[in-house]
Amino acid sequence: MSIKNLFMAAALALAVACTSSRTTVPIKTEVPAREASQQDVIGLTVPAMDTVRIGFVGLGMRGSGAVSRYTYVPGVKIVALCDVEPDRVAAAQKTLEGRAFPKAAEYSGSLDAYKQLCERDDIDLVYICTDWIHHAEVAICAMEHGKNAAIEVPAATSLKECWDLVNTSEKTRKHCMMLENCCYDFFELSCLAMAQAGVFGEVLHVEGSYLHWLDPYWDEYWNNWRLDFNHTHRGDVYPTHGLGPICQVLGIHRGDRMKTLVAMDTKAVNGPARVKMQTGKECDDFLNGDETNTLIRTENGKTILVSHDVLTPRPYDRMYQIVGTEGYAAKYPIQQISVGSHDVLGPEAVKELQEKHPSPILTPELVDLAKTVGGHGGMDFIMDYRLIYCLRNGLPLDMDVYDLAEWCCLGELGSISIENGNAPVEVPDFTRGAWKKVNGFSYAFAQ
Amino acid sequence: MSIKNLFMAAALALAVACTSSRTTVPIKTEVPAREASQQDVIGLTVPAMDTVRIGFVGLGMRGSGAVSRYTYVPGVKIVALCDVEPDRVAAAQKTLEGRAFPKAAEYSGSLDAYKQLCERDDIDLVYICTDWIHHAEVAICAMEHGKNAAIEVPAATSLKECWDLVNTSEKTRKHCMMLENCCYDFFELSCLAMAQAGVFGEVLHVEGSYLHWLDPYWDEYWNNWRLDFNHTHRGDVYPTHGLGPICQVLGIHRGDRMKTLVAMDTKAVNGPARVKMQTGKECDDFLNGDETNTLIRTENGKTILVSHDVLTPRPYDRMYQIVGTEGYAAKYPIQQISVGSHDVLGPEAVKELQEKHPSPILTPELVDLAKTVGGHGGMDFIMDYRLIYCLRNGLPLDMDVYDLAEWCCLGELGSISIENGNAPVEVPDFTRGAWKKVNGFSYAFAQ
Repeated sequence: MSIKNLFMAAALALAVACTSSRTTVPIKTEVPAREASQQDVIGLTVPAMDTVRIGFVGLGMRGSGAVSRYTYVPGVKIVALCDVEPDRVAAAQKTLEGRAFPKAAEYSGSLDAYKQLCERDDIDLVYICTDWIHHAEVAICAMEHGKNAAIEVPAATSLKECWDLVNTSEKTRKHCMMLENCCYDFFELSCLAMAQAGVFGEVLHVEGSYLHWLDPYWDEYWNNWRLDFNHTHRGDVYPTHGLGPICQVLGIHRGDRMKTLVAMDTKAVNGPARVKMQTGKECDDFLNGDETNTLIRTENGKTILVSHDVLTPRPYDRMYQIVGTEGYAAKYPIQQISVGSHDVLGPEAVKELQEKHPSPILTPELVDLAKTVGGHGGMDFIMDYRLIYCLRNGLPLDMDVYDLAEWCCLGELGSISIENGNAPVEVPDFTRGAWKKVNGFSYAFAQ
Repeated sequence: MSIKNLFMAAALALAVACTSSRTTVPIKTEVPAREASQQDVIGLTVPAMDTVRIGFVGLGMRGSGAVSRYTYVPGVKIVALCDVEPDRVAAAQKTLEGRAFPKAAEYSGSLDAYKQLCERDDIDLVYICTDWIHHAEVAICAMEHGKNAAIEVPAATSLKECWDLVNTSEKTRKHCMMLENCCYDFFELSCLAMAQAGVFGEVLHVEGSYLHWLDPYWDEYWNNWRLDFNHTHRGDVYPTHGLGPICQVLGIHRGDRMKTLVAMDTKAVNGPARVKMQTGKECDDFLNGDETNTLIRTENGKTILVSHDVLTPRPYDRMYQIVGTEGYAAKYPIQQISVGSHDVLGPEAVKELQEKHPSPILTPELVDLAKTVGGHGGMDFIMDYRLIYCLRNGLPLDMDVYDLAEWCCLGELGSISIENGNAPVEVPDFTRGAWKKVNGFSYAFAQ
């Protein structure tokens, strides 16, 4: 064989390999190796504590409500309050005072103020409600200082932050839970219980979304952070409300895992128009499309559809849909449940089904209290209650750091897919091999 | 440079090219060159005819109803009836008799019987309602014998059939229209008129689907053809009811075109279970997933979501959703219209909006007649009426052979995407360059 022929043969072989692999191999992102000293945190527990001592970081839209709710949660002590803006700390102190809670320590005045809070030795849980881009940084600091971390959604805004949170939780053996309140809404809790009882047969397809016109709210975000984030990021930047409840139904990293993702967005129209309205200048670099759709296939052959649209005027909708071999449930725009038929069950039959399959975490007393305290109709309170209940009893939390990473990774993975012509992207296994250790989602309870 | 180094450099260069092109270049399917003698059929007309002489091929589920409806359409003569099964021809003759129509010529007894019908010289339109796999074959024969063709959905089951129909229509200069009745349903017609009037601003995202549990109906299909087709084909095999109305809203091949497609399906569970129920044997080669989702991005940066599920028990749903920069419309599971707000318009406001933007094809007389004659609530009749009206007046039809190809190509393109790990696939330009000749969808009317 001449040199030229050898060269041509090699080129041909590579070209063939290239053509055939082009389409069957998804884009892979880097999976950092787990350090030898480190282990997964599936089923992680920390020692039971009689009282959970909490420091709040971020007291704006979500944080102020959280402080208020926590004055109703049994077994907590609100130790410290932190926000860049001193008036927000003062307002939260007022909330405590109004509920006859002792005054908390105050941290304020700079973006670094949270560090002093994390350095205290009398805090068990740092509850983080800052803007999105500071979520991970604060949580990592908290865990590194021996605290458990609870983080508002989305807890991570990049793959790096997902992995950093996973690694920090694994290294420190501290809880790192995302505060995905939609996992605690009544219809979702009820459908999860039904799904786990087999009412829908084998669940094959699920949908969740965040379709919420933010036009009336953009100006409420400190420093315009939310619009800025959409300005500079493509992909579904707010997927967790849709994903959380349906991933629990599928048992993601509890016997199944998200494997392949493709995303597609519309061009950006209302985003840049909003920027122009604010600045008076044309905006030609707004990245987030008005609507983004993401499809995911799991290892076990199930599919997930997640939609994101905060820019067009439309009815609020989180989709929440379960498609099973024997039944169907959907929440938006109207609740529908079908079992073994295309007929939608009437209210009586639904009620009967729901009573037959109650969510194990809902006692009548808790439901009453949740509805009284409120917070998105009660779901925020149920989430808080469960978090504290599990910490006080030394139990695994309902959601772990892998849930957090899986639900947050859609943003950057979707942007990779979109930037590469809607190519398939591999969803990393954040458990690094431990996704079959547990079979199916479950709640922990004290003996 | 040594041979080895040269080889390595070449390999490296190719590998780099491979990596970078892997993700940005979608899979392309073959686009046959247009013969020099051939031209596009955008705006095609055939000479006006006072009476449209029709031959029906396929008189089963859809064909028998069509014959009945056509006895109410002004200006038609039903010349011939054809079906493999003689009793179906006899039943259609009974229908004609009952409506005091003259007896039609009969063709029956073999799969080739339609050829004799096509060879007649007194037929203007062959109306095809056979099983899916014979649609294209009969239509091509009809056009090659100088007839116009109207074909039930889906008119083509493969890319080859799409291209064969396009080429035959272009060569013979005969109409080839798919009978996509959902383009004529009242809510869809109304929303199309509103969208064209700008009520929703710029439409950025649309959805359509076919979610219809066929469990009670599988046995009604001659020779089990429908389940067999799902058994042997992956991808969305029945996309046109969802796609038709939303493609008209987007003006597909009328200033915009579908460009990139990705599809994803669930594993097949209820399909093989059905086969097992019928045959008593395990089925391990059922290709169609219980649910299939397809995402499409257009040249102008709009997105389309199409879903298919005929295998799980769920409420009937064609989705039909329009997401615009200034408004929103959705039909299932409840009709919702929003304009400039997340609030859903009440019935009075909707009525006002609909009266302000009437569909140009709906006269009060036609609506009355359509509701009397029926056929999916009247939409079948409106479709038939428009087809005959356009033929009698020598006008372009509402839907051309490119609509047909675009709406039918999802099946094979989706299966290519799925079989290649959900890779992006390029949607061919069936107009071969003519997709900007017309700007926006419109109906033709006699002067």
